[in-house]
Amino acid sequence: MLLKRLAIIGVGLIGGSLALALKRAKAVGEVIGCARTVSELEKAVKLGVLDRYSTDPEQAVRGAELIVVATPIGAMRGIFAAIRPGVQEGAVITDAGSVKASVLADARAALGEAYPRFVGAHPIAGTEQSGVEACWADLYVDHRVILTPAEQTLPSATATVRGMWNCTGARVDVMDAATHDQILAYTSHLPHMVAYSLVDCLTRAEPAGALRRFAAGGFRDITRIASSHPILWRDIALANRSALLESLRSFSGGLERIVHAVEKGDGEALADLFSRAREARARLAPGADAQADE
Amino acid sequence: MLLKRLAIIGVGLIGGSLALALKRAKAVGEVIGCARTVSELEKAVKLGVLDRYSTDPEQAVRGAELIVVATPIGAMRGIFAAIRPGVQEGAVITDAGSVKASVLADARAALGEAYPRFVGAHPIAGTEQSGVEACWADLYVDHRVILTPAEQTLPSATATVRGMWNCTGARVDVMDAATHDQILAYTSHLPHMVAYSLVDCLTRAEPAGALRRFAAGGFRDITRIASSHPILWRDIALANRSALLESLRSFSGGLERIVHAVEKGDGEALADLFSRAREARARLAPGADAQADE
Repeated sequence: MLLKRLAIIGVGLIGGSLALALKRAKAVGEVIGCARTVSELEKAVKLGVLDRYSTDPEQAVRGAELIVVATPIGAMRGIFAAIRPGVQEGAVITDAGSVKASVLADARAALGEAYPRFVGAHPIAGTEQSGVEACWADLYVDHRVILTPAEQTLPSATATVRGMWNCTGARVDVMDAATHDQILAYTSHLPHMVAYSLVDCLTRAEPAGALRRFAAGGFRDITRIASSHPILWRDIALANRSALLESLRSFSGGLERIVHAVEKGDGEALADLFSRAREARARLAPGADAQADE
Repeated sequence: MLLKRLAIIGVGLIGGSLALALKRAKAVGEVIGCARTVSELEKAVKLGVLDRYSTDPEQAVRGAELIVVATPIGAMRGIFAAIRPGVQEGAVITDAGSVKASVLADARAALGEAYPRFVGAHPIAGTEQSGVEACWADLYVDHRVILTPAEQTLPSATATVRGMWNCTGARVDVMDAATHDQILAYTSHLPHMVAYSLVDCLTRAEPAGALRRFAAGGFRDITRIASSHPILWRDIALANRSALLESLRSFSGGLERIVHAVEKGDGEALADLFSRAREARARLAPGADAQADE
């Protein structure tokens, strides 16, 4: 057994699935959960996700060797401050947030002398659902988890968090927080802004009726991620502000080139750009490079 | 039986699936195909899509009561001119292009006295595949087909084309070409430009390796349509230039509002926009409004 006691703050899809995966791997003795809503915590106990719970973060982490904070990013600084008095000597703390530099800054500010035992982590996984009922032990199998230890981070703490994620079937990468934030800005955060913006554009353009009737599969696919949770994504957008702005500006510049080519009727430029994008996508998302013309 | 003889110019997924659907419905006696590649035509005969074929458009349409032009939009004007001498008295002509005003203009210019028997049509259907091997009789079941008759179009011609599509299980709508082009600009053409541009932006930003490893499901979904055929989409972008430019400018303006909100750290504006977009998408794509947070 890797751990005798694990504490999870924020028991949703991400935290709950982690608990299930570790229990199945027999990597953990006891899982303590913390959340604001008692009914959700009761549900989690019933589903076998948690062994017990507390609504008080400080109480929840007492005696835990490993503490996972799986709340929206905007709540993390407050959680770090709240758990600090309860973190036992030698306990390792980690998170599951989609932005890393800002979380590291929050942890440094709020965790004090425990900061060298904090390891930033981002499991790149999700499903169409959310909440504790959607939890499943296989969520992380063959998914990437990125760890972003800082200069001050103890190598033993990083090893503990890596060991935990290895037990879930995930593949662990290590990089610095700034690199993580730049990669995710382009592969995840920018696409979310684009999807939200695309739906917004459609609703401003036409009465919903005509659009609803004629929106085809391509539209549904490209806007699926616009169904993501608004508060979660507000937090991500603000937390990864500079990398996100860089990606947004680069995207806008590229789109402007398409606008110019359409304006000028430059078919060659359009065909070139579309061909390069199609080939790049086949490389970026192998096995998913099928054709979709509607 | 609705028709004794149908001619299809361009025997790909769209034209071939139409032939299969009409044959299954016993709505057609004989289907003649026309394409440039003999091996594709031979394949279509073997698959039961065609009864016979010609590589000469004028020959292919002789004696047909209904002629369907299912080529990329850029080729249509040339096809209309080529078939004109072969079109028999009273024969009805239709197409399957994704833009309608430009196709109507091409038909008017090239079909001459046969133009009142031309009915613009757009079946809003597609699959992950293309080519005659991908054809199937169910492609149009419960899909929308938009007819865009012009002022000069004979009501009897529109009725014939409507009758044909009804036999495939599709739901037929009628509107003017400009309305069609505006709706499709927002629901289909703009999303394709955005998907191409998003992939292009990613390839300019980072070595493909890092992106490939960390591009998650959300990225694959939002860029799926960037795998669409470059020439087909070059043609569509140029043919629907003014409506597409309007939609591109509206989208860019909306994205600019997100950029400003991120710059100013205006979380309230972001949460508002994301919430409205999420709700709108639930209305626009019912049954597909699940959550996807990565």
